[in-house]
Amino acid sequence: MPTSHTRIEAVMAAVRAKIASRSYLPGARLPSVRAQARTMGLSVSTVVEAYERLVAEEVIHARRGAGFYVAGPAAPLALAEIGPRLDREVDPLWVSRQALETGKDLLKPGCGWLPASWTYAEGMRRALRGTARAGEALLADYATARGLPALRQWLARRLAAMDVEAQPEQIMLTESSTHAIDLICRFLLQPGDTVLVDDPCYFNFHALLRAHRVQVVGVPFTPGGPDLAAFEAAVRTHSPRLYITNAGIHNPTGATLSSVTAHRLLKLADASELVIVEDDLYADYETSPAPRLAAFDGLSRVIHIGSFSKSLSASLRCGHIAARADWIDALVDLKIATHFGGGQLPAAILLAALTGSGYRRHMEGVRARLATAMEQTIQHLGALGIVPWLRPGAGMFLWCRLPDGVDAAALARTCLQEGVVLAPGNAFSQSLSASGYLRFNVSQSLDGRLFEVLARALASVPAPLLPPPLSAEPAAPTTGRAGQ
Amino acid sequence: MPTSHTRIEAVMAAVRAKIASRSYLPGARLPSVRAQARTMGLSVSTVVEAYERLVAEEVIHARRGAGFYVAGPAAPLALAEIGPRLDREVDPLWVSRQALETGKDLLKPGCGWLPASWTYAEGMRRALRGTARAGEALLADYATARGLPALRQWLARRLAAMDVEAQPEQIMLTESSTHAIDLICRFLLQPGDTVLVDDPCYFNFHALLRAHRVQVVGVPFTPGGPDLAAFEAAVRTHSPRLYITNAGIHNPTGATLSSVTAHRLLKLADASELVIVEDDLYADYETSPAPRLAAFDGLSRVIHIGSFSKSLSASLRCGHIAARADWIDALVDLKIATHFGGGQLPAAILLAALTGSGYRRHMEGVRARLATAMEQTIQHLGALGIVPWLRPGAGMFLWCRLPDGVDAAALARTCLQEGVVLAPGNAFSQSLSASGYLRFNVSQSLDGRLFEVLARALASVPAPLLPPPLSAEPAAPTTGRAGQ
Repeated sequence: MPTSHTRIEAVMAAVRAKIASRSYLPGARLPSVRAQARTMGLSVSTVVEAYERLVAEEVIHARRGAGFYVAGPAAPLALAEIGPRLDREVDPLWVSRQALETGKDLLKPGCGWLPASWTYAEGMRRALRGTARAGEALLADYATARGLPALRQWLARRLAAMDVEAQPEQIMLTESSTHAIDLICRFLLQPGDTVLVDDPCYFNFHALLRAHRVQVVGVPFTPGGPDLAAFEAAVRTHSPRLYITNAGIHNPTGATLSSVTAHRLLKLADASELVIVEDDLYADYETSPAPRLAAFDGLSRVIHIGSFSKSLSASLRCGHIAARADWIDALVDLKIATHFGGGQLPAAILLAALTGSGYRRHMEGVRARLATAMEQTIQHLGALGIVPWLRPGAGMFLWCRLPDGVDAAALARTCLQEGVVLAPGNAFSQSLSASGYLRFNVSQSLDGRLFEVLARALASVPAPLLPPPLSAEPAAPTTGRAGQ
Repeated sequence: MPTSHTRIEAVMAAVRAKIASRSYLPGARLPSVRAQARTMGLSVSTVVEAYERLVAEEVIHARRGAGFYVAGPAAPLALAEIGPRLDREVDPLWVSRQALETGKDLLKPGCGWLPASWTYAEGMRRALRGTARAGEALLADYATARGLPALRQWLARRLAAMDVEAQPEQIMLTESSTHAIDLICRFLLQPGDTVLVDDPCYFNFHALLRAHRVQVVGVPFTPGGPDLAAFEAAVRTHSPRLYITNAGIHNPTGATLSSVTAHRLLKLADASELVIVEDDLYADYETSPAPRLAAFDGLSRVIHIGSFSKSLSASLRCGHIAARADWIDALVDLKIATHFGGGQLPAAILLAALTGSGYRRHMEGVRARLATAMEQTIQHLGALGIVPWLRPGAGMFLWCRLPDGVDAAALARTCLQEGVVLAPGNAFSQSLSASGYLRFNVSQSLDGRLFEVLARALASVPAPLLPPPLSAEPAAPTTGRAGQ
C-alpha cells in the first residue's frame, strides 16, 4: 500500500504530467477535488493536500469558490505554441504567412501557386460576366446542404473520367481543399489519435494537424510513393486512424504514386482499418495521369478531395469531398454546424469557368510553360550546385538538395532580407530531416534576380568543413528518404 | 486503505464514467495499462484486472498488440449523436437542413433569410460585372492572411460609426459569421468548457457548440437582454469561458439589449474573465440602433463578428471578426491552418455591392417592407390564436406563443407534409422549455396558403384538456422567460 506521502505525490505527478502533455492547458480548470479523488480512488483530503502543494509551487492557482486552475494565462489555442519549437523559417504557419504576403518586388519561388499572369484571367472574367446574368435565387440564396447540384454533377463526371465512381450525392462542396481535410479530421479524429503523413509533405498538413492536437507520424517518401516497409511499421506501431497524402503530383517532391505501391498501400489500410485522404489539387497539371487510390478502392476507405485553387483561381475558394454516402451525410452536418450553408456564387462562377471553351486549352498552355520553366530552373540551380532529388514528370514543384552542409533555414532567412521567399525543407518534414532541401516552384523561378540572390546568399552562409558535421542532419525514427 | 477489490472497482467506475460523459468515445483507445496505473496511483496488475473485467462486460475490447478500445464502431463525430436525443423537428441540424432544402412550392416561414425576390440582385449583378474588370491578381491570387485590405478598411469605418473602434489590423475576414464563431471557439475553448447562450438563441449555436463538445448553459432571455440574476448565477455556478449572443436584433425574439443590461453584463464579464462574442448579422435592419457591447468594452473582452449574408447575399459567403490585436493574430494562424488563404473575389464583390450607390436605398426599402409584413403577420397569426411574445421594433423575426397546449414540434411535422417549413421553439431553447413557441420570418409569411395550412394543422393537432398537463413544459434549471 502506498504511504500517504506517496499518494499525495502521485496526485501531484498526475497533474504535472497532464500539464506537460497539454491535456490540461494553461488557464484550464482542474477536475474538482471530489472528482479527482473519485477518479484516482483516493481520499478527498489527499487530493486537497496535493492541490495545495501545487498552488504553493505556483503550478496551479485557486479561484475562490471556483476551483483550481492551471497557472498561466487563460488558454487560447496558440498554434505556434503546440508541438516542437521551430525556427520560424521552418514553422509551417510562418512560411504560409510569408507566402501570402504581398509586395511588389517580392520574389516567391517558395510559394505553391502560379503567378497571376499565368492564370486564366480571361476565363474568370467571362465567368463573372455570365454569372451576373443569373437569376435572383442564385445571386441571393444559400446553396443546398451538399452544395450547387450542377457543379457536383460535373465533378461526378470528371471523377468518373479518372475511374473514381462517385454519385453527385457522394460529393460535398467545401470552401477549399484545406477546409475539406479539416472537416474530415473533425469527423474522424480525436485529440491524441495518430495520423500518418508523407515525410516530406505539404507543410500546411502539419499546421492543420496541430490544430487537431493529434500525433503526427511521418513516413519516408520515395519516388514511387511512401516507403512501404516504413508505412507498415508505422501502422503496426501507432495504429493510426488516418493517412493524408496527395493524389497525382506529390507536394513537395513532384513524385507520383506507382500502381504497385497504390495497391499495397490499400491492402495495408484494409488490414488495419486505416482511412486514407488523397488531396488531388494538381490533377490538371498531369501529362499522364498517375493512379488514384480512390479509383482502386471504390471510395470505401479512401476519401478523395480536391479544388481548383491551383489551376483556375485561388481568389475564388471552392473545394470538394467525394466519400462514402454515410460519411458525406455526417460531414454535411458538421459543415452546417461550423459554417452553416455554403454559397452558390463561387460554385457557379467556378463551374462557368471550368466548362467554358477555353479552360482545356489554357491548361495545355500552362503545362507547356511549366515544362520549359522546369528545364530552365534545373539548369540555373545546377549552376549553383543545387540538384533536384527527382526530375518530376509534370507540375510546378522541384524538390532540391542544397550543396553539402548548407542549412536551408539559414539560407531562407538571408534571402528574405533581399525580398526572396523560399520554402526550406524542414517546413515539409515531420522528422526535421530535410534541412538540406528547398522546394522551388518553377513558375515563380523565372526572374534572374532569384539566382543572383541565391548565389550571394550561398556565398555568405558559412560553409562547413568537410565532412559536414553529423548534427546538420539529426537522425530520427521517421527520417524520410526524400529528406536524405 | 481500499481493498484490492475496491481498487479494481474504482478503475472500472472511472472508465465507465468517462465513457458515459463521452470523454472516451466509442472506438477511442483507452490510456495504456501503465499510464492508467500511474495516473491513478495504482498497481499495473489492478488496472489489468479492471480492463479484463470491462472486456468481459463488452464495455471495452482489446486489439492484439494495440491496447484497449471503447466498444462500438470507430468513432466518427456524428453530431446527431452528441447531446440529448431530440425530436428531429427540434434538432437544430434537421431544422437547418429543411430550411436549406429547395423546392418550388415550399413555404419557409421558419427560415432565417429574405426571399430572393427581396434581395439586392441588381446591385450584386453590377458588382459582378465591375469585378470582372479587375486585374489578374485580384482574379487569381489568395488574399493576404487577414483578408482583402480594402474591405477591412471599409469595415473599420462602418464599425467606428457604431462606436466600435477597431483598426483594420484588428479585423479578419472569414467565410461566414458561423465560421467566425467556429474559429473563436477553436481558439478559446476546450472540450468540457462551459459556454453561455441565450435561451432561446439562434438554433445553429447549439449545433456549433456540440461540435466543440462543450457544456452549454442557457440563460433566460428577457425583452431587454439576458436575465441578469440568472446570468450572474450561471457565471458563479459554471465559470463559463464564453457567452455567445446577438448584437442588435436578437434571433429568434426580435428583442434588443438595453443600455443598462449591456453595462451590467460587461461588469459581470469583467469580474469573471468571461469572453463575449456578439454576432451582428442584422445591423442593417435596425431603425434605431441598439447598444453594442463591443462599443462599451472597447474590444477588450468582447469579440464583434458579422456578415452580410442576411442583408446582401447568402450566396456569396464573407464574414468578419473584430477583436484584440493579439487575438486576431492567433486567429489568423488558425484560419491558415484550417482553411489556408481566403479568397479575394468574394470580398471584392461584397465591397463593390456595399459601396455602390444603391445599397442604402435598397435597405431602406427592405425595412419598410418588413414593417408592413410584420403588421400583416401579427394580424394573420392573431386570428389563429398565435400571439407575439414581443412586438419587435425592426427585423424579420417574430417569436410567437401558440394556443395553450399545442406542441410546436407536432405542428411543424404536420405542416411539413403540406410543404410548410416551420421553426419550432425548442430548436432554439437549450432547456427545451419553448415547446409552445414558433419563430416566424415575416418576409416569408406573406403567402395566404401558410395561414390556411396552419389553421388546418392547428385543428388537427389534438387539443389538450384544460388546464394543459404540466409535462407539456418541463421545468428545467435554465428555463427561459422567453420560453415561458
